[in-house]
Amino acid sequence: MTRTIKLTLEYDGTGYQGFQSQKHGKTIQQSLEAALQQICQAPITIFGAGRTDAGVHALNQVCHFKTSARLSNEKFAKALNALLPQDIVVREVRDVPDSFHARFSALKRGYAYFILNRTSPSATFRRFVHWVPYSLDYKAMAAACQHLIGEKDFSSFAGAASDRKSHLVTVNKARLLHGTGGFPAPIPNLKKDIIVFYIEAQSFLYNMVRIIMGTLLEIGEKKRSAQSMAALFNWRDRKKAGPTAPAKGLFLVNVRYPKEFE
Amino acid sequence: MTRTIKLTLEYDGTGYQGFQSQKHGKTIQQSLEAALQQICQAPITIFGAGRTDAGVHALNQVCHFKTSARLSNEKFAKALNALLPQDIVVREVRDVPDSFHARFSALKRGYAYFILNRTSPSATFRRFVHWVPYSLDYKAMAAACQHLIGEKDFSSFAGAASDRKSHLVTVNKARLLHGTGGFPAPIPNLKKDIIVFYIEAQSFLYNMVRIIMGTLLEIGEKKRSAQSMAALFNWRDRKKAGPTAPAKGLFLVNVRYPKEFE
Repeated sequence: MTRTIKLTLEYDGTGYQGFQSQKHGKTIQQSLEAALQQICQAPITIFGAGRTDAGVHALNQVCHFKTSARLSNEKFAKALNALLPQDIVVREVRDVPDSFHARFSALKRGYAYFILNRTSPSATFRRFVHWVPYSLDYKAMAAACQHLIGEKDFSSFAGAASDRKSHLVTVNKARLLHGTGGFPAPIPNLKKDIIVFYIEAQSFLYNMVRIIMGTLLEIGEKKRSAQSMAALFNWRDRKKAGPTAPAKGLFLVNVRYPKEFE
Repeated sequence: MTRTIKLTLEYDGTGYQGFQSQKHGKTIQQSLEAALQQICQAPITIFGAGRTDAGVHALNQVCHFKTSARLSNEKFAKALNALLPQDIVVREVRDVPDSFHARFSALKRGYAYFILNRTSPSATFRRFVHWVPYSLDYKAMAAACQHLIGEKDFSSFAGAASDRKSHLVTVNKARLLHGTGGFPAPIPNLKKDIIVFYIEAQSFLYNMVRIIMGTLLEIGEKKRSAQSMAALFNWRDRKKAGPTAPAKGLFLVNVRYPKEFE
């Protein structure tokens, strides 16, 4: 009997050419399919919810595959984590109805972008933050986030490689937060160094989060106003937006599905 | 004119044989002295506040050295960070009175130990957390922390290599917290995976924090009671305490000095 299995993955994207298999370079998909093939003793193709780029990380990427292997979910997870390199971890394995598709069934995806905003870089979190040494106008950046919410034409924020017919995207949430860099509040002096940009939508255009982040950083540097964010939806011109922020600060944080699949 | 300079350092201890120079293996001290020698054009000896072990990290280690170099503090920091490997970062350089000694002037040191308590390991934070897959009795561990506070004989928690005459230590703070694994509260499902043990004292015995942590973990596993922590101060026997928890979860978080040096 063929099962449809949903996998939830965490990975450190530093050493990978992105999620999706390609001709050159190591990818998350290839590493995962190699481990699955060894366990299932048959070639396996996985389908991911979000095709993260080279260097982008994930806390809860979701993918699915079909197999007739009879292992329990728990044994599947253990076998996968034993075979996978340390920078890819399977967090959950579960059977889902056959109609489940990691990409097409997804209702919402959430991405977080981490900025380290202080004079010195970080020795410990250097792989997971974009270091910005100059001071940022946090309030202007937070105000600009408001313009991102709703159904809008994000053509100004679509990378050249975008193959979508429509650049209309509905953003549900877009906000700026102060993080703690992994360290809880009672430890002094660590609270305000990390700025996190969190954004949630049904789907995203190619490089969309990183281009929005690059634009928000220009607003933080006062190179453009918070208001100018709104005008970008009329321009529909990639050249009018800011640069693409580095991959290393970006995490796919969660993917949400209809109740029957959760 | 000779200056006394105080350095504040962050480092990822994964690739180092600890802070202090030794015959074999790369250390933080050696790396730092090599960079300082290049900048000051003279041999430099540094003195650290805490001699962190192999694999232990630091967010704010403090050390000092004497030099007649005339660089501004800002240029010193930039030159050091340009020469140092990415896993060591100088966070602050400042001139202090000649009487300052990183180790002997310190009033308090704070250490944090990070535990990832969930069924799967972490792909992203694997270098900085000790993964515990079984469930832990958080309340019992937190209750046991109370017994650590005050002036007590920590002989049961001193590693064999301890060279101190007295094992009497005054612990100011010892508490358990839930961290967020580097991700701010609004992102779901990430809040409760990280347990942090924070402890503050004027000084610590060799391996003291890691032995306390190993003991707290046995309490969390219900191998011993929270009450049993108190008895260990009477036993004064290393064999009665728990195992030494792995180095990777431990961070030297801060070192405090009298006002004139801060």
